[in-house]
Amino acid sequence: MTQLKEAKKGNVTAEMEYVASCENISAEILLNDIAKGHTVILKNKKHTSLKPLGIGKGLRTKVNANLGTSKDKCDPSYELAKLDAATKAGADTVMDLSTGGDIDAMLKQIMSQSKIPVGSVPIYQAVVDNVVKNQQAMVYMKGEDIFESIIRHAEAGVDFVTVHCGVTKESIERYSKQGRLLDIVSRGGSFLAEWIRFNEKENPLYEEYDKLLDIAYEYDLVLSLGDGMRPGCLQDASDRGMIQELIILGELAKRAYDRDVQVMIEGPGHVPMDQITANVILQKKICNGAPFYVLGPIVTDIAPGYDHITSAIGGAIAGSAGADYLCYVTPSEHLRLPTCEDVIEGVIASKIAAHAADIAKGIPGAIDKDIAMAKSRKNLDWKKQIELALDPERAKRMRDSSKPGDDEVCTMCADFCAIKVIADGKKDNPEK
Amino acid sequence: MTQLKEAKKGNVTAEMEYVASCENISAEILLNDIAKGHTVILKNKKHTSLKPLGIGKGLRTKVNANLGTSKDKCDPSYELAKLDAATKAGADTVMDLSTGGDIDAMLKQIMSQSKIPVGSVPIYQAVVDNVVKNQQAMVYMKGEDIFESIIRHAEAGVDFVTVHCGVTKESIERYSKQGRLLDIVSRGGSFLAEWIRFNEKENPLYEEYDKLLDIAYEYDLVLSLGDGMRPGCLQDASDRGMIQELIILGELAKRAYDRDVQVMIEGPGHVPMDQITANVILQKKICNGAPFYVLGPIVTDIAPGYDHITSAIGGAIAGSAGADYLCYVTPSEHLRLPTCEDVIEGVIASKIAAHAADIAKGIPGAIDKDIAMAKSRKNLDWKKQIELALDPERAKRMRDSSKPGDDEVCTMCADFCAIKVIADGKKDNPEK
Repeated sequence: MTQLKEAKKGNVTAEMEYVASCENISAEILLNDIAKGHTVILKNKKHTSLKPLGIGKGLRTKVNANLGTSKDKCDPSYELAKLDAATKAGADTVMDLSTGGDIDAMLKQIMSQSKIPVGSVPIYQAVVDNVVKNQQAMVYMKGEDIFESIIRHAEAGVDFVTVHCGVTKESIERYSKQGRLLDIVSRGGSFLAEWIRFNEKENPLYEEYDKLLDIAYEYDLVLSLGDGMRPGCLQDASDRGMIQELIILGELAKRAYDRDVQVMIEGPGHVPMDQITANVILQKKICNGAPFYVLGPIVTDIAPGYDHITSAIGGAIAGSAGADYLCYVTPSEHLRLPTCEDVIEGVIASKIAAHAADIAKGIPGAIDKDIAMAKSRKNLDWKKQIELALDPERAKRMRDSSKPGDDEVCTMCADFCAIKVIADGKKDNPEK
Repeated sequence: MTQLKEAKKGNVTAEMEYVASCENISAEILLNDIAKGHTVILKNKKHTSLKPLGIGKGLRTKVNANLGTSKDKCDPSYELAKLDAATKAGADTVMDLSTGGDIDAMLKQIMSQSKIPVGSVPIYQAVVDNVVKNQQAMVYMKGEDIFESIIRHAEAGVDFVTVHCGVTKESIERYSKQGRLLDIVSRGGSFLAEWIRFNEKENPLYEEYDKLLDIAYEYDLVLSLGDGMRPGCLQDASDRGMIQELIILGELAKRAYDRDVQVMIEGPGHVPMDQITANVILQKKICNGAPFYVLGPIVTDIAPGYDHITSAIGGAIAGSAGADYLCYVTPSEHLRLPTCEDVIEGVIASKIAAHAADIAKGIPGAIDKDIAMAKSRKNLDWKKQIELALDPERAKRMRDSSKPGDDEVCTMCADFCAIKVIADGKKDNPEK
């Protein structure tokens, strides 16, 4: 049984009850949206300690933080520190994208330590096993290796997996025909494109999609249909290759839905601001309203070192247009594997985007904390302002670093604080 | 003579020639937009050393950085360091908002050191002169004091001044009638509202607006009609008080236009994402297409310490909807007077917003640098990537801090860099 199957039958599960209570909506509304495939619940049956998380229609926009080792930076304990930092900063999920060292062991440690749902990209496991353990080129990997890695991750309790099922002969042909500035920038996408080219065979994840659905069904593993064709620069956004892949993902999402497998769709990437809303509308339409998980999107290519900001702009617009789940981008993107500090910056920037989007799309209660903050500003109640801040430690540190002469104000305006000017005027003339 | 008067007559001035060449548009198009009041050129006649700057229709979105002392933090040399930092980070203008110490001397130093146009809020001068020098309450200030401070700043060469002409008995009544969570949060707005209430007189800047126009005309000082009623929290956005003020500003903008005085309109503030585009459309319609100078806007109230990000989101949306000029917000906003580092963060965040907006609104050539960056990414040309970065120093520092084993990639993906996987595949199979 899966959450989707139960929802279709009209059974409210314990997981639905829990998610509904977290989101302040009725379990009936949630059940209805799950039954339509508009909402998913992340919780692998094997991940028994996990509190389930809902992603989708009418729910708070969620934020994912990526972590994991690479060949060049392989320090598992540091990745675990990032997991803690991301969770503390408010990430709703993490993905372990490790490609360096013993990636089995890394995933196990993350699974045992994480308090939030965990996702992975099992093809990395298959590739690393072939390239590093078996010392052969990635293209010699067997289709079976990919499925085996998915089963291994599902057994480990991973709650969702990115599977690049839409990188097919057809979508590759369409993208090649059009030509692109930056080809493929998705790691999984590039592996599969090269594998298909070299072996002259179809993508196993596409050809044997039913096998994938069987695995996912067994664990209630949520499939995150990856966008291997996502644009790697603004110029490539919304091109024919990318949209061809989206069409295929829409068909696959329908097959997953019919098989009672929960599914979400991954989206771009690098997208000019004026194309973001169109991309969300298109995804919702083509993929039957399945939850949309966007990677950024980042809205300019020229700000390496600040891609938490370029992606906060894109994520906020996507979220307000209906995207359900934002993958963070850190200041390190395009430059290096992120540090712990980068992870925190990335999570907070995405949280800001998600929250601003929730206010814009009218998620009930989203603006309440903003109203409380406004009231504490009016009351010159600094203790409360700090408490309500998304990052209270940083807000406190900054205020404490610059002590005002009068505790009621801050050093920006000192005596000329507008709020105080008006408040003092009212005090003198209460009738006015 | 003013740029507006010359444009109406069809005379292309040296300033127009210069601005047109900077913006890669023809002087005729620029002249036409100035003549309609859709574009202004910042350049006080007394500011002889200055290169003029255009703000308005079809031009690159500009970024302003605020600086200046307060009573609690009064270190003129540090404010001059901020001027340098802001200019280096790419600010198009600065505003001196000093309210602490010898503010005459501060402005003179900024005028002599600045390579970019300078704005000010002369009412601060009038208030500080009264409160600090004359030791009397702000409300005893005379209307004449405000005009005198405007003349003093114009004489000093200031290129534009914020004047809160729309804080009138009428707009105050409308805002009071509706009630607000956070009353008035504009410093200048709060001074004038209190002055009006205490003296039971109309705002001198409104009542004697013709006098203001005479001064502005003489120096070709651009009037930036301030939004004293701007919302201080999301909940107060777009309320009747704010829109009442906008209507008055629209009338005053028309009077300035008729008098050949260049004018722009200041806008909110704290605005939920879904209201930003509406605000821009409304401003353009009500104010006859005058340039729109937005303060942020910030899209959530709960992120003190990160308001460079909340404002980058709002500024990008406003800019793409047609706003012409973004006032930066630093991470220190709502907490303290900013540090030099905050100034840099604030400028870069606003530059990102402005650039993303320029791409979205189709400013010719805006995307060229992004295309060059994409090409250098495809070529794994790291030197060029660093050069093209909005902040090359930061990008270099981050990359250098985490050396990859192979110089062609970065430590995020190492050998599994998607761009390299595809490039190597193409190398092996050039025909494919």
